[in-house]
Amino acid sequence: MNAIEGSCWPLDRMSAQRRDAAFLGALREAASTRFLLLVGDRFAIVSNEARDFARLRLLSRAQLRGFALDARDALFLGCNPQSGTGLFALALKEHEVDEPLAGLLQPLVDLRSIAARGAMPADEVAAASTAKSLAAWHQTVRCCGRCGAATRSEEGGWKRTCRACGQPAFPRLDPVAIMLVHDGERCVLAREPRFPERMYSTIAGFIEPGEDLEQAVRRETREEIGLDVARVTYLATQPWPFPHSFMIGCLAEAVAAPLALDPLEIDDARWFARSEVALMLRGDHPEGLWLPGRHAIAHTLVRHWAESRD
Amino acid sequence: MNAIEGSCWPLDRMSAQRRDAAFLGALREAASTRFLLLVGDRFAIVSNEARDFARLRLLSRAQLRGFALDARDALFLGCNPQSGTGLFALALKEHEVDEPLAGLLQPLVDLRSIAARGAMPADEVAAASTAKSLAAWHQTVRCCGRCGAATRSEEGGWKRTCRACGQPAFPRLDPVAIMLVHDGERCVLAREPRFPERMYSTIAGFIEPGEDLEQAVRRETREEIGLDVARVTYLATQPWPFPHSFMIGCLAEAVAAPLALDPLEIDDARWFARSEVALMLRGDHPEGLWLPGRHAIAHTLVRHWAESRD
Repeated sequence: MNAIEGSCWPLDRMSAQRRDAAFLGALREAASTRFLLLVGDRFAIVSNEARDFARLRLLSRAQLRGFALDARDALFLGCNPQSGTGLFALALKEHEVDEPLAGLLQPLVDLRSIAARGAMPADEVAAASTAKSLAAWHQTVRCCGRCGAATRSEEGGWKRTCRACGQPAFPRLDPVAIMLVHDGERCVLAREPRFPERMYSTIAGFIEPGEDLEQAVRRETREEIGLDVARVTYLATQPWPFPHSFMIGCLAEAVAAPLALDPLEIDDARWFARSEVALMLRGDHPEGLWLPGRHAIAHTLVRHWAESRD
Repeated sequence: MNAIEGSCWPLDRMSAQRRDAAFLGALREAASTRFLLLVGDRFAIVSNEARDFARLRLLSRAQLRGFALDARDALFLGCNPQSGTGLFALALKEHEVDEPLAGLLQPLVDLRSIAARGAMPADEVAAASTAKSLAAWHQTVRCCGRCGAATRSEEGGWKRTCRACGQPAFPRLDPVAIMLVHDGERCVLAREPRFPERMYSTIAGFIEPGEDLEQAVRRETREEIGLDVARVTYLATQPWPFPHSFMIGCLAEAVAAPLALDPLEIDDARWFARSEVALMLRGDHPEGLWLPGRHAIAHTLVRHWAESRD
């Protein structure tokens, strides 16, 4: 690989420059510009054997040309304000990666694993998250929702416009309420059907048109586990690019009562004492029950509650 | 109008029943079921002369039939859990409303005016907000974004599915960061080009893929008014169906500095002392400057700050 002339980290999104086609065109061809590669839903990374070090694998325009890769639809992620080095993401399908390129792009790792391992700098995880969200959205707006004609990517991938009727479309983010339901002394953790064995987590659901965060938390908690929520306290947010969610994390204080589970959404849910949650956080639970890792806002919510007195 | 047998307020969204086509079909035909009407982007309401009383105008299935209105694509808003009375929204285009129907549907009022006047019960404003958000979304997904074929409405309007490839689409909500930028003693209020004369408000912007709330607040504040934000404090959320935004309201503490305005987004922005903001809230500003009304989260943010000491 070529030496990297200037680092693109930290990255400024430079959203005002997205509409400047001449700027973006020149930046895309610049020798210092770098491209991260998303193949299907996995990223090309550089990692050591112990896997306690991971960086995004960044390619130059010359390298892309060597593999006859078309960078015109690369997604503009931003520039480093000091060095001016630009960063784009190139999203490829598995079948577009031939043998020699596949060799260069080893290993390919999915973002959930990258985030769970915690070995990649936060700036790079955020850039990968942006790229994954944007790339997933592009797949769902190849045609115009109004007239059905083909759309084209514009503004470095931050807009698509219908070639026939001109209707614009912008990247989608789905707000989700995610809440740790508790009664002060105990909290409710649940298993969705798709979870790995013995993992429990907080409940969550998409916020709907016409409701605010508190109303969504109350509705979802009643629907999924049958409890009425008294007080809702906001804690934090997190982008979650699976495929393009925006998680809004809360504590939801409920009146203790038997749980009534929605069988479609919830496999199992239980009240857990604070001491039992502490064992899960330490990985010492006697039944081997465990929680999502530090990369997930569910972990932040559970840890915040477990380490506080209400 | 027919007498209303049972009120639909308060409304339970009954989201688990949306997939039950037999339930929805029977409810749609029930004599007690009511329909609110959205014509273009205005709602049929009942109001008194003083306009300090406003309710949604609700029609029965029999009334719809009398005007040969097709209720198959009516949007399911929920039921009252006690009476079982169902509520749907019917979205019509202006040209679909003939003379006799237009007479019945007087007055037609846009939701911004309804909300600003503050004369309609909160339950009904929320139902109208849900209907407006959903109806706007349906207009943008008439065709499949993946293959371009026609889609059909399902689950009472909470899903659309491609008739050709089966790709599903779900209602869209765009998370927006809206922030009162302040330095403790003064706050920044701004005018966007589309604002009514002499109105100032907080700044706001769409949250982007890959960033959390704090990052979005910092980026938008830097882009729109050129200030760096230190501390971000969450305050409240609000659905805002113009067309389908989800506002997340914050206080953003910035270091006082000259403002650098984005000329595309901001017409004017100024630092305002707390005492001057108090005059604006009372409607007594010497230059006639004013703020959005109590229905808007911008008002909540400004009032919260103006009435607190930091």
